[in-house]
Amino acid sequence: MNTFSYNRLYQFTHAVFLKMGCSLQDATTAATVLISADLRGIDSHGVARLSGYLRLWEAGRVNPRPNIRVIYETPSTAVVDGDAGLGLVVAPFAMQVAIDKAKLVGTGWVSVKNSNHFGIAGAHAMMALKDDMIGMAMTNASALVAPTFSNERMLGTNPIAVAIPANEQPAFVADFATTTAANGKLEILQRKNEDMPLGWAQDKDGNPSIDANIIRKQGALLPLGSDREHGSHKGYALGSIVDIFSAVLSGASYGPWAPPFPAYVPMPENQPGQGLGHFFGAMRVDAFRPAEEFKGHMDNWINRFRNAQPSEGNDKVLIPGDPEREMEAIRIVEGIPLVEPVEKDLLEIAEKFGLKF
Amino acid sequence: MNTFSYNRLYQFTHAVFLKMGCSLQDATTAATVLISADLRGIDSHGVARLSGYLRLWEAGRVNPRPNIRVIYETPSTAVVDGDAGLGLVVAPFAMQVAIDKAKLVGTGWVSVKNSNHFGIAGAHAMMALKDDMIGMAMTNASALVAPTFSNERMLGTNPIAVAIPANEQPAFVADFATTTAANGKLEILQRKNEDMPLGWAQDKDGNPSIDANIIRKQGALLPLGSDREHGSHKGYALGSIVDIFSAVLSGASYGPWAPPFPAYVPMPENQPGQGLGHFFGAMRVDAFRPAEEFKGHMDNWINRFRNAQPSEGNDKVLIPGDPEREMEAIRIVEGIPLVEPVEKDLLEIAEKFGLKF
Repeated sequence: MNTFSYNRLYQFTHAVFLKMGCSLQDATTAATVLISADLRGIDSHGVARLSGYLRLWEAGRVNPRPNIRVIYETPSTAVVDGDAGLGLVVAPFAMQVAIDKAKLVGTGWVSVKNSNHFGIAGAHAMMALKDDMIGMAMTNASALVAPTFSNERMLGTNPIAVAIPANEQPAFVADFATTTAANGKLEILQRKNEDMPLGWAQDKDGNPSIDANIIRKQGALLPLGSDREHGSHKGYALGSIVDIFSAVLSGASYGPWAPPFPAYVPMPENQPGQGLGHFFGAMRVDAFRPAEEFKGHMDNWINRFRNAQPSEGNDKVLIPGDPEREMEAIRIVEGIPLVEPVEKDLLEIAEKFGLKF
Repeated sequence: MNTFSYNRLYQFTHAVFLKMGCSLQDATTAATVLISADLRGIDSHGVARLSGYLRLWEAGRVNPRPNIRVIYETPSTAVVDGDAGLGLVVAPFAMQVAIDKAKLVGTGWVSVKNSNHFGIAGAHAMMALKDDMIGMAMTNASALVAPTFSNERMLGTNPIAVAIPANEQPAFVADFATTTAANGKLEILQRKNEDMPLGWAQDKDGNPSIDANIIRKQGALLPLGSDREHGSHKGYALGSIVDIFSAVLSGASYGPWAPPFPAYVPMPENQPGQGLGHFFGAMRVDAFRPAEEFKGHMDNWINRFRNAQPSEGNDKVLIPGDPEREMEAIRIVEGIPLVEPVEKDLLEIAEKFGLKF
């Protein structure tokens, strides 16, 4: 496994987006969002996906010069049409609309249609922090998840991110798939040829499975909670809420009709909307109480939880966002390790476009 | 187990709230919210809790004549001070503020401090449906839940409810604790003297436990996901978000400082805020797209998910809200069964106040 500096991966990715036909500004936005995933240790959502975005572009499903615009609005809400642009570009546009609305009326809520995969949800939610706002981001995704009691793939891993500012403490940043395990965790086990724990996925008939390749055999990921006895109906409800806020509010394609990320998977027929959907929120903390007061109490909240008694065998209790922030501090200095298949992917891309990697 | 008509339970509860000193209007609101839980089959949150509310009143922790008011606001947000009133009354007041703001600027978001237990979250979220709005309700609660890697009780079961209107289909209504199992499920097993499944709770050292009485032995409930390998850090993050939105935004007491529901449990020292906190949201669906269009697609969403392929051994796939709605249809006709300890409780209350039950 070779290690690459942040700058090197950023510059290469930026060059690839330019080759795709993106504007300079869009290439900058897209590369920043994409590599933020590698930096934060969410390797499944970083440069590992660059070839996937390229294949969508080659299939004509990504518009490198989109006319992203607000098509419907009220003082606190908007719907954005992404014009089939890269989600990596559409999402920051829409999140900025939410932030701008929050500046005027306290909160802003933006639902997006006609978009594509937007990278890590956390990157968009965190945009709100600099303005002392709580940021939220969610997205629907290709159907890989079976509802409780079903063996049909009806929902994506539909992540939710919430970023909450503090004062002296680093921000609280939750960013998680509404499934028991993200698909990226299965991919890691596939590479190592190892089994999964029970409770992550089921086979095509709905039986428990530990085969890390079961998704390729018509199996399905399980909603957070794994089974009915352990609350999978709650994970199913959460994933559904993300789907409805992202795609039914905006007019994107929802549920099993969500456009698949792999370009070789055909689009589901009878699309009820356009493209993938996202949902963003921004709430000014001083729309509720003075910002310094709120952030002081967030410091107190974070301190108290970080100092909760660890159980036997555990060092310390974590605050959402701690692992990613610690990883970022390491990788910005030591570089980003890439597994061989990803490095090979990037070399092929370099060759295709006559770029140096 | 005897069965009682809705009207009988409603009238008795209404009379008890009047005896506590509530106004006629507040007694009506409180009884309606409380008995809606019994009607919907969430027995742990209905009349079974009436004696608990009474004990809080006797301990001087519930103000039967509160001056509930907005103390801070922007066009899309407000903070409500519940003046230590019954959460059953404070919550509908605050939700109505959210709805009124949504009418004006598209969405409304209200954080509440200085409140008490508010019954079932779903009842408040559903208030938004009649105005073609999406409703949201959440609350913090007495600390019974240990974060991932901890053996200390830091969070309540912190439920989230989201109600989404449809047209021909009944509304989507999710209402769930952010733990693997709600405390009410443990109480049912305690009464039957049965063990719990693994994954619901841990003992005081953080070891897995199947003892349904473990919470009384300094054990803790587990966040949705049960353990790290099955995503408990996601349930912990969700419960934390509910705590922060409900109590840090408003100025209520958060985390382990949340006021305990049982009146005999002393208040945690050094309260960082006032009372319990709630958070409510209302989003006009026509702040995103025409209401008929949205509700038509919700019908399609609900139909598609209800007709997802059931896995072996299961009849059908449920939509969030189906079980509660089906239960309500039965109980409004056949009555509400009460377990013996609850009936005994109500008889004692009747005697205390010179009421007939």
